[in-house]
Amino acid sequence: MTASFNASRLALAALALLAAGSAGAAPAKPEKELPPKPSLADVLKASKPGDWRALDPDNTLYMDLPTGRMIIELAPSFAPATAANIRALVREKYFDDLFIIRSQDGFVVQWGDPDEENPKPFKAAKTVKAEFTAPIKSAGSFTRLKDGDVYAPQVGHVEGFPAARDPASGQTWLVHCPAMIGVARDTGSDTGNGSQLYVVTGHAPRHLDRNITVVGRVVQGMPLLSVQPRGTGAAGFYEKPEQRMSLKRVAMAADVPEAERSRLEVMRTDSATYQAVVEAQRNRGGPWTKVAAGRIDLCNAPIPVREQK
Amino acid sequence: MTASFNASRLALAALALLAAGSAGAAPAKPEKELPPKPSLADVLKASKPGDWRALDPDNTLYMDLPTGRMIIELAPSFAPATAANIRALVREKYFDDLFIIRSQDGFVVQWGDPDEENPKPFKAAKTVKAEFTAPIKSAGSFTRLKDGDVYAPQVGHVEGFPAARDPASGQTWLVHCPAMIGVARDTGSDTGNGSQLYVVTGHAPRHLDRNITVVGRVVQGMPLLSVQPRGTGAAGFYEKPEQRMSLKRVAMAADVPEAERSRLEVMRTDSATYQAVVEAQRNRGGPWTKVAAGRIDLCNAPIPVREQK
Repeated sequence: MTASFNASRLALAALALLAAGSAGAAPAKPEKELPPKPSLADVLKASKPGDWRALDPDNTLYMDLPTGRMIIELAPSFAPATAANIRALVREKYFDDLFIIRSQDGFVVQWGDPDEENPKPFKAAKTVKAEFTAPIKSAGSFTRLKDGDVYAPQVGHVEGFPAARDPASGQTWLVHCPAMIGVARDTGSDTGNGSQLYVVTGHAPRHLDRNITVVGRVVQGMPLLSVQPRGTGAAGFYEKPEQRMSLKRVAMAADVPEAERSRLEVMRTDSATYQAVVEAQRNRGGPWTKVAAGRIDLCNAPIPVREQK
Repeated sequence: MTASFNASRLALAALALLAAGSAGAAPAKPEKELPPKPSLADVLKASKPGDWRALDPDNTLYMDLPTGRMIIELAPSFAPATAANIRALVREKYFDDLFIIRSQDGFVVQWGDPDEENPKPFKAAKTVKAEFTAPIKSAGSFTRLKDGDVYAPQVGHVEGFPAARDPASGQTWLVHCPAMIGVARDTGSDTGNGSQLYVVTGHAPRHLDRNITVVGRVVQGMPLLSVQPRGTGAAGFYEKPEQRMSLKRVAMAADVPEAERSRLEVMRTDSATYQAVVEAQRNRGGPWTKVAAGRIDLCNAPIPVREQK
């Protein structure tokens, strides 16, 4: 009995009963195979130190849950005012001992203050201007994906974040891929202040793009959020206090003693190595893969993160 | 303090501190708003009985987990041999008391026999021919989405399943959207026999399309699977027996006494009402939405399921 599976994050794990190991099975006939190609793991292994950048402690947020640490990289180049307000909220310890308040299957997990009657006060701004899009000319270097997109004229990456842009309007925006962090708001565009945030846990809800401020990405700890029990209230909100997981402590990495900091590096999405990462996913080699996709969806392009070496 | 959120499955839940309720906040200024439009909930409410079809008990599989019932609709028109082998496995009670053996974050949950040394024997076929694609001419009516796709020349729905097709090759195939069921296999194309199945829980892994037999869709119970603790082994396999959840009983609906059957209906994807469902998601109205997407990704088009009336 043999089992094979590929351990890379996006590879299929094809653990199956092998025909050759079963009595009475016909002998396997040779199939036409795709030639082997470097896998994502191969590309990562061959990467150079310059392909990586350390997280900036002033843009890195630790959310320490009872089950472990989740790490968010903020995107101030897309949402400077919102990122600043989140830093202010974190530094006045607003989030400490608040809760995960919502888990909607196939969509988002959200956290903040569940108490609408007597909300926890805070000194940071109550309204922040909408930062749904940003001018292309003020954004960082855009590495375009050649594969096209259903929702936007152009998609690719800016400084390690999935992004879209529209040359006609001159605007660019962060895209709602899994692990992206958005700022919950009410009807008014300026009602999102960062005191309630959500992370995408399901298939990319791209209709939210340009409708909400996207402010960062979870670079470590997604499983801590994605397994949260689904809420039984409307839109996946928890109905009972005991269903809510506590946010024990939320801190900017810069405010955490050196010894307690996580040491993560993110691959530079403007590097040649990142192009190889994308290509390894776009066109996989044999023998497991029979047909290479030839294309890749923006949200299927992994953005590698590793422990600093 | 006011909170608003939309309870429809794919709508954003925008629970946020309302500016108007906070002392010292500037009064909200009127924004330009999109006109209101029928929501998904409105369209479902206005649907007619003929827009729905009952599940066929011979193509409906119940997986009774300790936490509840998951229901799968098989797709024999795309994978007749595989669907037949799964029926045979179910009817010899192969799956009863086997396990969920894998949960890989953002990808799939998989079930079957974890024991590679002494696998549970079965009488059903050990190898089944690959049913990765099917001839367009033998498939059911295709309702095409006009929105385009990154991976395939054409996408849309066939008999309630997300599907793609390529007129050049004359082939059609089921698409790896969330909730779709695939047949784990080893390297050989015919090594998937249905004794190990997986369900997509993360962003659609479309690179698997045409590389594996897709055999159905979870029509109820996705949350039971998507919250499974992530496995710590390679590719999310569980490393310890106690991490595996038991599949208590797996049965074809046709073999379950009438009184114990679930009564579900699926919306006919070739109905005019389904076009209204898609349009409600493609172009949402105000006031929460500020920019209508104008487009929809195949895997963001919901396929409504309800209790029989």
